Amino acid sequence: MNILIINSGSSSIKYQLISMPSERVVCEGLIERIGSENAILKYSTDTSKLEETQAILSHKIGLLKIADLLLDPSLGVITNAAEIAIVGHRVVHGGKAFSDTSLIDASVKEKIKNLFSLAPLHNPHNLEGIELAEEIFPNAKQVAVFDTAFHHSIPEVAKRYALPKKFYENKVQVYGFHGTSHKYVSEKAIEYLQLKSSKIISIHLGNGCSMTAIKDGKSIDHSMGFAPSNGLIMGSRSGDIDHAVIFYLVETLGYTLEQVNELLIKKSGMLGLTGFSDLRDIQTEAANGNQDCILALQMNTYRIKKYIGAYAAILNGIDAIIFTAGIGENSALIREMVCTDLEFMGITLDTDKNNTRSKTLLEINKKGAYVKVLMIPTNEELEIAKQAYRLINV
Amino acid sequence: MNILIINSGSSSIKYQLISMPSERVVCEGLIERIGSENAILKYSTDTSKLEETQAILSHKIGLLKIADLLLDPSLGVITNAAEIAIVGHRVVHGGKAFSDTSLIDASVKEKIKNLFSLAPLHNPHNLEGIELAEEIFPNAKQVAVFDTAFHHSIPEVAKRYALPKKFYENKVQVYGFHGTSHKYVSEKAIEYLQLKSSKIISIHLGNGCSMTAIKDGKSIDHSMGFAPSNGLIMGSRSGDIDHAVIFYLVETLGYTLEQVNELLIKKSGMLGLTGFSDLRDIQTEAANGNQDCILALQMNTYRIKKYIGAYAAILNGIDAIIFTAGIGENSALIREMVCTDLEFMGITLDTDKNNTRSKTLLEINKKGAYVKVLMIPTNEELEIAKQAYRLINV
Repeated sequence: MNILIINSGSSSIKYQLISMPSERVVCEGLIERIGSENAILKYSTDTSKLEETQAILSHKIGLLKIADLLLDPSLGVITNAAEIAIVGHRVVHGGKAFSDTSLIDASVKEKIKNLFSLAPLHNPHNLEGIELAEEIFPNAKQVAVFDTAFHHSIPEVAKRYALPKKFYENKVQVYGFHGTSHKYVSEKAIEYLQLKSSKIISIHLGNGCSMTAIKDGKSIDHSMGFAPSNGLIMGSRSGDIDHAVIFYLVETLGYTLEQVNELLIKKSGMLGLTGFSDLRDIQTEAANGNQDCILALQMNTYRIKKYIGAYAAILNGIDAIIFTAGIGENSALIREMVCTDLEFMGITLDTDKNNTRSKTLLEINKKGAYVKVLMIPTNEELEIAKQAYRLINV
Repeated sequence: MNILIINSGSSSIKYQLISMPSERVVCEGLIERIGSENAILKYSTDTSKLEETQAILSHKIGLLKIADLLLDPSLGVITNAAEIAIVGHRVVHGGKAFSDTSLIDASVKEKIKNLFSLAPLHNPHNLEGIELAEEIFPNAKQVAVFDTAFHHSIPEVAKRYALPKKFYENKVQVYGFHGTSHKYVSEKAIEYLQLKSSKIISIHLGNGCSMTAIKDGKSIDHSMGFAPSNGLIMGSRSGDIDHAVIFYLVETLGYTLEQVNELLIKKSGMLGLTGFSDLRDIQTEAANGNQDCILALQMNTYRIKKYIGAYAAILNGIDAIIFTAGIGENSALIREMVCTDLEFMGITLDTDKNNTRSKTLLEINKKGAYVKVLMIPTNEELEIAKQAYRLINV
């Protein structure tokens, strides 16, 4: 059974065609810079690879291009659109409405729409992807997999803010994000370590960065809250700041609230601290003595360390920590800085193992360490495929 | 030498007359509800006690009343205003300008004024107290002790937010508060435990609540940041919230920024969660099954626990945690809830010792516990007196 996975963002569409239950990736690719004359279209299969720059002015045109490639007589992998049995959509925000993967119908779409105000940068594009996929693949079942769903298990003590109850009733709470990734890697860890009961901290470091405290396979706390904005220091997002700063910027420094919002989401984080948005550049600069870059790396890993401590405290000790996603999988430096000086809680890193490059799970703690430190490549697309497959084949 | 300590708030003046170096409290008291017809004036010495309700319409009238009482032929403790050698003022915000206690002159007053925008609720009243004391006690030396000064040692990695550098240059950083209290109790702990090098977490739980990570006697991180608003859940302040909530309240729910500020400072925290502002009421209600109160106590202590873990992580283990201030000193329940399920890091509480009432330092950990748990009554007035005395007598 072919499942097409679509992750539709503000100016991009990522996709994979996965054959289930074999989990074989038949083809994958992405379109970036949708809306421009210079959009980039990537497509690859086992035997062919394509990368083109061309005008792709809308998501609809983009998705049609993808369908054309899938069906292309020489490059394609299917001969008929009906060969796509399921389209699995990544949807960022499921709010309180969705605690699990859902078969999409009119009511589900309506609910995703009702959540626009909670995820204005994501849900509208996710819904657009769904509606286009319905047009292009009318025979396929459409399935939504929500980033927030894994975090439905977070108990009230961690989910509520210390605000009057009416705000909680008015949707103000911790939702949590990157749930598909945290679920995927924590299940891998539990399987690898053969744990019956388990206390795990997963650290997802990509464009967005977040951490989850996971007890017996269930999310019990998470560093991002109401929106994917607070918690860790990210590429261009500030993560945690004293909220009083916002009032100061508006009332004393004369910013508009909109400018402050843009500042905190697009101009802060590692970019704001260093002027660079790619962590590899920041690491190179730091190695060459750039003080801003050195400080930014220290601040970034210092904050991760604080969340490790906080989650260890609420879990009353941990079995394992997991590094995942682009930075978590590839930056040995970040992993090393995070794991330094945490011996008191049983975390010690094997530097040689940590410096090994791997596309698969790597155990990088010192032999005999009380806490296992794991690098686990995430695979949100495969997780979406698995969940969609399970939903349809129950 | 007589030192008069003045803590001038928005509608109150707290005061103590302390004889130094003996540290004897000659008299103490406070005025509450300044500006109303029903202000409350309290004054007590070893031999007399007074409590009156009367109109006290301004801070000036209040301070004059205090001076009258000090000089009163029957109730008083001095015969001439010149017997006050030093007036020690609590000043909340010292910004970057003050890393230590300072003798007040025109330039110091100007700097305190320049910090009004950083502490609009506190510094103006602190300065007013200073100017009135200069009028009433013209022969005394005026000394300012800043709540922020103890936190000057916080390193950049903990002090900076992940914002562009220009905001740091524009005063946006972690300042830290309750420094006089954190300094006082941590020095007591170091003395009691006879530690040479030390890793301590102090937990100040009063109207405002904050925690400090203290290494070798120096503050290295603190839960309040730019303003005394974030971090722990307080009486009516929310503490940490996802800053995205602010944008949502304004843009989607239609609040003004001013209303949101008031909500987060005056209507949130334990009050917002339960409807009660006094912790004793909340504990009683919780014991009677009030679910909101039970949850609020859980949220409150859950967050303290997370900060303990976070600070233990950056300290790489801890020697002691300290509970202090009104709630920290008096709520055995809060201490017990905080210290439960932290065995992994060596924290275990002796329930009997914890339930003991004491006006002096109490060691409440189990015998042989790796981490000492201490209840230490804070004494900000004495700390101010000591610092002022030291400054003038060097």
